[in-house]
Amino acid sequence: MAQTSMPEHILHVGNAWLESWGPSETLQTVGKAIPKRSGLDKVTGRARYAFDVQLPGMLYGAIVRSMEARGRVVAIDTDRAAQIPGVRTILTPANFPTLPSQGRPALSDQVRFVGEEIAAVAADTEPAAHEAARAITVKYEKYPAVIEPEAAMQPFAPPLTPTGNIGGGGPEIYERGNIQQGEAEADVVYEWRYATEVQHHNPLEPHGCVASWHGQELVLWDSTQGVHMVKDGLAQALGLPLNRIRVINEHTGGGFGSKNGLKPYHIIAAVLSQRSGRPVRLFMTREEEFIASHHRAKSRHIIRAGVKQDGTLTSLYHQIVGQAGPDPEGIRMAVAGADCTKHLYQCPHMKTELYKVLTNTQSPIPCRGPTAAEDLFCFEQCIDELAHELKIEPLAFRLQNYAEMDPVANHPYSSKGLKACYEYGARVFGWQWRPPGTVREGSKYRGIGLGSIVFHGTAGEQSEALVILQNDGTAQVVAGIAEIGVGAETILAQIAAEELGLPVAHVSVRYGDSQTTPYTINSSYGSRTTTLGGPAVRAAAFEAKRQLLTLAARELGVTPDTLSIKEAQIIDQGTPPRRTPVREITRKMGRELIIGVGTRHPKVEGMEVQTFGAHFVEVEVDATTGQVRVLRAVCAHDAGRWVNPLLAESQIQGGFIQGMGMALYEERIMDPRVGMMLNNHMHEYLIPTILDTPEQLVVLDAQTLDQSNSINVKGLGEPPLVGAGAAIANAIYNAIGVRIRHYPITPDKILTALHHPTVRGASRREQ
Amino acid sequence: MAQTSMPEHILHVGNAWLESWGPSETLQTVGKAIPKRSGLDKVTGRARYAFDVQLPGMLYGAIVRSMEARGRVVAIDTDRAAQIPGVRTILTPANFPTLPSQGRPALSDQVRFVGEEIAAVAADTEPAAHEAARAITVKYEKYPAVIEPEAAMQPFAPPLTPTGNIGGGGPEIYERGNIQQGEAEADVVYEWRYATEVQHHNPLEPHGCVASWHGQELVLWDSTQGVHMVKDGLAQALGLPLNRIRVINEHTGGGFGSKNGLKPYHIIAAVLSQRSGRPVRLFMTREEEFIASHHRAKSRHIIRAGVKQDGTLTSLYHQIVGQAGPDPEGIRMAVAGADCTKHLYQCPHMKTELYKVLTNTQSPIPCRGPTAAEDLFCFEQCIDELAHELKIEPLAFRLQNYAEMDPVANHPYSSKGLKACYEYGARVFGWQWRPPGTVREGSKYRGIGLGSIVFHGTAGEQSEALVILQNDGTAQVVAGIAEIGVGAETILAQIAAEELGLPVAHVSVRYGDSQTTPYTINSSYGSRTTTLGGPAVRAAAFEAKRQLLTLAARELGVTPDTLSIKEAQIIDQGTPPRRTPVREITRKMGRELIIGVGTRHPKVEGMEVQTFGAHFVEVEVDATTGQVRVLRAVCAHDAGRWVNPLLAESQIQGGFIQGMGMALYEERIMDPRVGMMLNNHMHEYLIPTILDTPEQLVVLDAQTLDQSNSINVKGLGEPPLVGAGAAIANAIYNAIGVRIRHYPITPDKILTALHHPTVRGASRREQ
Repeated sequence: MAQTSMPEHILHVGNAWLESWGPSETLQTVGKAIPKRSGLDKVTGRARYAFDVQLPGMLYGAIVRSMEARGRVVAIDTDRAAQIPGVRTILTPANFPTLPSQGRPALSDQVRFVGEEIAAVAADTEPAAHEAARAITVKYEKYPAVIEPEAAMQPFAPPLTPTGNIGGGGPEIYERGNIQQGEAEADVVYEWRYATEVQHHNPLEPHGCVASWHGQELVLWDSTQGVHMVKDGLAQALGLPLNRIRVINEHTGGGFGSKNGLKPYHIIAAVLSQRSGRPVRLFMTREEEFIASHHRAKSRHIIRAGVKQDGTLTSLYHQIVGQAGPDPEGIRMAVAGADCTKHLYQCPHMKTELYKVLTNTQSPIPCRGPTAAEDLFCFEQCIDELAHELKIEPLAFRLQNYAEMDPVANHPYSSKGLKACYEYGARVFGWQWRPPGTVREGSKYRGIGLGSIVFHGTAGEQSEALVILQNDGTAQVVAGIAEIGVGAETILAQIAAEELGLPVAHVSVRYGDSQTTPYTINSSYGSRTTTLGGPAVRAAAFEAKRQLLTLAARELGVTPDTLSIKEAQIIDQGTPPRRTPVREITRKMGRELIIGVGTRHPKVEGMEVQTFGAHFVEVEVDATTGQVRVLRAVCAHDAGRWVNPLLAESQIQGGFIQGMGMALYEERIMDPRVGMMLNNHMHEYLIPTILDTPEQLVVLDAQTLDQSNSINVKGLGEPPLVGAGAAIANAIYNAIGVRIRHYPITPDKILTALHHPTVRGASRREQ
Repeated sequence: MAQTSMPEHILHVGNAWLESWGPSETLQTVGKAIPKRSGLDKVTGRARYAFDVQLPGMLYGAIVRSMEARGRVVAIDTDRAAQIPGVRTILTPANFPTLPSQGRPALSDQVRFVGEEIAAVAADTEPAAHEAARAITVKYEKYPAVIEPEAAMQPFAPPLTPTGNIGGGGPEIYERGNIQQGEAEADVVYEWRYATEVQHHNPLEPHGCVASWHGQELVLWDSTQGVHMVKDGLAQALGLPLNRIRVINEHTGGGFGSKNGLKPYHIIAAVLSQRSGRPVRLFMTREEEFIASHHRAKSRHIIRAGVKQDGTLTSLYHQIVGQAGPDPEGIRMAVAGADCTKHLYQCPHMKTELYKVLTNTQSPIPCRGPTAAEDLFCFEQCIDELAHELKIEPLAFRLQNYAEMDPVANHPYSSKGLKACYEYGARVFGWQWRPPGTVREGSKYRGIGLGSIVFHGTAGEQSEALVILQNDGTAQVVAGIAEIGVGAETILAQIAAEELGLPVAHVSVRYGDSQTTPYTINSSYGSRTTTLGGPAVRAAAFEAKRQLLTLAARELGVTPDTLSIKEAQIIDQGTPPRRTPVREITRKMGRELIIGVGTRHPKVEGMEVQTFGAHFVEVEVDATTGQVRVLRAVCAHDAGRWVNPLLAESQIQGGFIQGMGMALYEERIMDPRVGMMLNNHMHEYLIPTILDTPEQLVVLDAQTLDQSNSINVKGLGEPPLVGAGAAIANAIYNAIGVRIRHYPITPDKILTALHHPTVRGASRREQ
């Protein structure tokens, strides 16, 4: 019935494996420190966030949240709220639609933590919406609640599920070798306990969206880390086909893991909009951010290590208890993990046990370096303790147990620059270890510390992108990414420009619309935007270039393989060489543009992809006030090729500072009787400010070229946070000679430790 | 250096010529009367127009316009304006940037008509902006101006250019055969004079945009007929590469030709935004719409026809004088044309002369059926007069001179359904011609009239579109069209759904963003959205289907040519036949979507593409008041296949009613001494309202399948207007027996003609 000139077997053009570009020195654009494209707009207030979206006739939403940690709603009185002028729609569990989504509905009369969604309103103004939400009165039948994981693990704790309070009914276990044998082979076995607390993501832009129905289509302007993941989630939750949901996002004011995928407020906003026939804006207040936008799980650790006197690790046992919140379905990798413990050292005998404990507190969600931060904050302090006990210089101890091959799968690494990070970092830092408590000036102690980093890469995942060549010779990347502040737009432009041989200013990037972009990433989590999106964009650019050179070859009367592109000139390698501006060829296209589709083509079989790093830190501890000040840090990272050193530097600085927050300041303070957070505002929940940042924060590139993808990159979003805590804790120990094993290391803990030194007591079991 | 699996010669997949689908009866979706997708949003006020866009920190712009018809600005005093609270930026010719664009800058001290742009302001509020614009005082050196074309053609008229006031220095001439010979062969030669007046486009949403700079990129939310044409125009005007300009448009509240491409307000808004560092909204007031958004040209016609007594046309001379405004560079097809005269009848000897006369009035611009309406309003009245003079029934006279082959190029037509329009229309109307002035009831006369339509098609132009298949089996069309109200979104969804074998609800269309869509059209003018975009979308869907069937064949273990798709099921024609839901196959794609690129592949060599139609009208003329009422109309159209009869009907109804406006009500009333429009508001410039529309407006489909493209369509946006005027005028003549040859046929003209019948005098030259 119809004809086509294409061979039938070809599905995608441009999805072949591409050879790496080789060292950065030979490149024009990739590897250059180009400022972030949206930077000026952001500092001048011009960047438009979902928070800023205004639509004609838009209403404002507000959510009524549970005041009880566990119970059933027996009555909701909305009469007073309905009479507040401007109130348009009130949703309660009674009139909320039945949706096909699994699990707890977005509004429900079953409540499992303080802050859970019960009802919602939409009104003409934001004050009217909040007034109405406050005017709705809720009566509860209270159930016995458990707030703290320790309490939840007690034998007679109220059970949250029929099978008790341990998610999955028991611990997740990983073993290699034989832990008994490893401990038997050790000269000494040490055991210490560590703890980390809840850290909140605290994005500058709160969580929220503007929902609007356009005919049969739901359009959502969302503050998100990924338009596709929200779209897919909404499709499933609302039972809509994908073509009827459009999620738009221009800029996101931070996410750090808390803005991936579907949340109750998306569904509530969509239903409020449908009921009222008007667009609805629904954003969290800062208080709601603390009690209902999720957080990093708190964790309790027992680490037992067997060592020989010469410094060889023979065994590692790592038990983690993580607080999982109320939802057995919701337990994911956010709660607890010992992945870094497994990968970091060459230790033959190992066992990890992870307990995910259900409590009547909100569910945790991945937070920048999820589980890895909790793990390494503790494990890399333990390593420091071991070195100290064995009287081995801590860097030497780490090198002694260095894993050349990956110890989990016994695979070679796609690249491993950890040794370079140690050596380069130590040199630049001027690393010279000294005994604890030996540098002091008045009440002020100084100490230095070191922490290592290992963090999983993104191996075999799919990614797709488009590159369009316009008829004036400029290019347009179309990529399904979110610009969550890290500079992905700039990086993808650099990658396309490099492949196309165009100046980077001639390449722009369109993103942030689920209906005009492919799944370049589904969401910007797991340090994956560059590692997934970059190779797809390069492949799309390669395919666009192939089409361009085919066209150029026709015009110039040569074969395409004699042609290449540099500085927007097509170069014919013939004798004599000829140069033709790209735009002279693209102009011939008229209104048929070159559209290159490219897919990521990873090469990961039999290869382990991990990122690495080492942080060197100097601190000052004031023994009078207990204040800790990070004086300087050198952060050396192996993230494969750095596409843009300026943006890499920003990532490392931002990550390190957020890690400082987790190490020194941030914790949720709960009333364990009622499950209410007591410090749910920025005056009492402290995050680092510019005054807390080290004056020197040096960033180093290990200069590896990773072999798992065509642009030689690994991720860099999360490792800098993951590596901050132990380095700081180790430096504090080096300063004052007392171990603090419970993060955050706040002044009260320093003072207690200094005045009651027995608190530092680690149990020591001699063999 | 890099490898690819693709043969080197393939540029685009999916650009092969596709065979037509065949008759509509065999189709599932195309040909069905599906409601316009955005209809509900529009009637409920939810559709977001550029007019509705609100951005954070947005300023409001206003333009200072010339009060003189011709002169030079010698002084501008902005002091008072600058002191108005909220005023942020004032632009004058003195501080306006020098831009690479040709012609008059967007702001200039040279003024050539009342309403031309001199200065502009941006302020925090709209009232402040307009107050500031009024507070700016301008001093002029006045030059002698000419307002009316008749005056401009006088020997001693002030010359607007060194070569005088005729654009191009003289008339544009078309000749076939030999006009002298044709007149010599005639039995009688008749000559009459006709006139049409300025018609304003009057879109419901005024002209304007919101301009915002995002870093180096200009983003413009524009009320436009085409994002690409505005983008291309801005790139040229501002000297920016295409990748740095993004033009966005969700819905346009009407354009009718006046919102194609670049206008001064685009440039002014962009510069105001750049200077102020803030987004700037700049929309015209209704008064500005009349004096500065362009209009249909007024025209003066002399038509001289030679006929034999048996009714054979032997010669046609058609002279048109069109009013071109002040800009010799700006003279385009908007001003005057006799294209319809050339194509409509089989007349061997013909000459047309087009004078485009420069005046100090704003430039005309194409208005729905540009030049064709002016031409046919007059020419098809002339044909009626000839039939009357020869005492031949007017429909019979037209059929006698019917052109089977195109008389201009002597080519066959890609399709011609005019005869079907005549026959079907006459039958449904109950066409029975009767002598003029014979049906009367009291002061009310009734008459019937007929008018034919020919209008150019869109032959060999390029078009490109994408179709993306999502992993849940739904589809996304990505098309660079504007949704100016005609239902293009719905039509393109139907075309893709038909080709893909999916329900139309599973296909959505993304459009209206210059940076994520290909050039499906550059702008929605010339009745081209379906004729250009439709075949490209079909080709893209065909290519997406090819990829899908290739994937399905792999999964099912068959060859792709045994597979087809119907109702979202992949059908394997084997024994026994198997059905597999499309989504079962697409689910296997994971996050690599199927992306089909398609280009229009027209087949037009040696073929003339024209659309046709015939309108039959009955009017009532009140001899006491001079009021004309159109009682009923039957509009038969040959536009090739009707993809959506409901939307086709809307187009025809809207076009006919707008044509009624031009025929009966609409005209610009000028003060010829100063060049000021006197009726620049909707109280005195009258357009048809719902009370003026005929009670019966029947629409007929000639059911041709055009051969020039793969979906068998021709355009339908403009012909309905083009055919309204002569049919109405002929019916008025048939009612009262007096000819009114000067549109609009207002009550005063009716009364004058009835009371001073000599005015009707046509010169008649006997041979």
